[in-house]
Amino acid sequence: MKLFRFGAPGQEKPGVILNDVQYDVSAFGEDYNEAFFQNNGLTRLENYVRENEGTLTQVPEGVRVGSAIARPSKIVCIGLNYADHAKETGAATPKEPIIFFKATTALCGPNDDVIIPRGAEKLDWEVELGVVIGKKASYVSEEEALDYVAGYVLHNDYSERAFQLERGGQWVKGKSNDTFAPVGPFLATPDELGDINNLRLWLTVNGETMQNGSTSNLIFNIPVLVSYLSQFMTLLPGDLISTGTPAGVGLGMNPPVYLKPGDVVELGIDGLGTSKQSVQAYA
Amino acid sequence: MKLFRFGAPGQEKPGVILNDVQYDVSAFGEDYNEAFFQNNGLTRLENYVRENEGTLTQVPEGVRVGSAIARPSKIVCIGLNYADHAKETGAATPKEPIIFFKATTALCGPNDDVIIPRGAEKLDWEVELGVVIGKKASYVSEEEALDYVAGYVLHNDYSERAFQLERGGQWVKGKSNDTFAPVGPFLATPDELGDINNLRLWLTVNGETMQNGSTSNLIFNIPVLVSYLSQFMTLLPGDLISTGTPAGVGLGMNPPVYLKPGDVVELGIDGLGTSKQSVQAYA
Repeated sequence: MKLFRFGAPGQEKPGVILNDVQYDVSAFGEDYNEAFFQNNGLTRLENYVRENEGTLTQVPEGVRVGSAIARPSKIVCIGLNYADHAKETGAATPKEPIIFFKATTALCGPNDDVIIPRGAEKLDWEVELGVVIGKKASYVSEEEALDYVAGYVLHNDYSERAFQLERGGQWVKGKSNDTFAPVGPFLATPDELGDINNLRLWLTVNGETMQNGSTSNLIFNIPVLVSYLSQFMTLLPGDLISTGTPAGVGLGMNPPVYLKPGDVVELGIDGLGTSKQSVQAYA
Repeated sequence: MKLFRFGAPGQEKPGVILNDVQYDVSAFGEDYNEAFFQNNGLTRLENYVRENEGTLTQVPEGVRVGSAIARPSKIVCIGLNYADHAKETGAATPKEPIIFFKATTALCGPNDDVIIPRGAEKLDWEVELGVVIGKKASYVSEEEALDYVAGYVLHNDYSERAFQLERGGQWVKGKSNDTFAPVGPFLATPDELGDINNLRLWLTVNGETMQNGSTSNLIFNIPVLVSYLSQFMTLLPGDLISTGTPAGVGLGMNPPVYLKPGDVVELGIDGLGTSKQSVQAYA
């Protein structure tokens, strides 16, 4: 199943994509949030769609697509989880997963503009595979970890490198501005995807390829990450884990390259669609 | 006004404290969450209490007290914000605020047990003044910052020092386990407190004083913090900012001292009450 959300920011309605056509399922009466995932929402939605397939209405062309999931309790990101990306940033390959949080207020639609914060000059891109948690996870083993996954999403982990690295201490400052987490266009349940450890992920800026990687190069794969994180915190249904980015970010170039107003960023992952953000200055 | 929440974990009801007596205001019909603060809940609750003061029922003795606020969108913590604490940890005095997040799943009641995570050996305490945001804050000036504050709470920012400092990268790993954020016993609105920049805060372990500081020694005070944070993220109503801890944590001792099962931690801040956690091993 492919789930998406549409409508004005903050007023998104739930939809599903069947054979590449977007259908409105707001009559199902639930948003794709913690309660939905916790209460077996995916199975109930699947049944609802099967029972109503002939009468579902299509979403009109041109309607805004929102984040594929409602605002979660956490967005947990993994740092330096591709060896080529660790190398380009000058960092050592991590011995265990590096964790940081992104403010959930950064969440936005996959094709919304990304806004350069006031005073910012080092806005960078990071295409990432996102994992959406399906049920409460605490001290989960690697063997059972995939049972706790509801599905997968495309995520661009926007980062302001000066805020992240030059303003004292922790990375969160450069990861949390509004619009820094476009998620979607849709959530795909695991059955929609092939081998999750062999998905191509790519990103272009103004049409030029910057990132072109594969999840086969993840240092810590998804079962390891879910299990590992669950030792340090309880993951709730609907929480998002962003698994890290491959080589090709602006910070890694010589000299570094950062985004400026008018730039257009496009990205995609096999089976998870594409997204596109135009870069705008804070008005 | 003093707001508190009572009842079983996850099913807390709203209450108010009037002349040191706890009253049930669940008939008011709202939890102390984002929507409550956003929709002028404090003023509406004050009116409700005034109109119903004679008929409010008392909360029975011995009922569990929950976190003073519902689970917020973020718990933003400030690192090394007292000069004496920065010194005891061997860190330089920060030039600008150090920010990190605590998972909101760490939130619990002020007198709930604190649970030592599996494999953890370095559980430490940190008494902190918490600031609860009253309305959406983005690019707020220092001059107007206090208009965005709903009230204040007592918070113990529990920290597992090995997870925080010895497991690669960012501090979040040692800050986010369940029960690491006991908040309360109550939220006090600003009018309930004297000078917020001159509150004593203290913490004891098994009756022995470990921390004894004053918010007069904050390196970055509350208006500075609210304004600063709002440059990097949008603060939402109900969000919690924990402003840092004074000297006297276990990490700062020679040799370091950490909590073990059976220890009892008590803490308090002038005008914000006291809390008490018993230390338990993960079962």
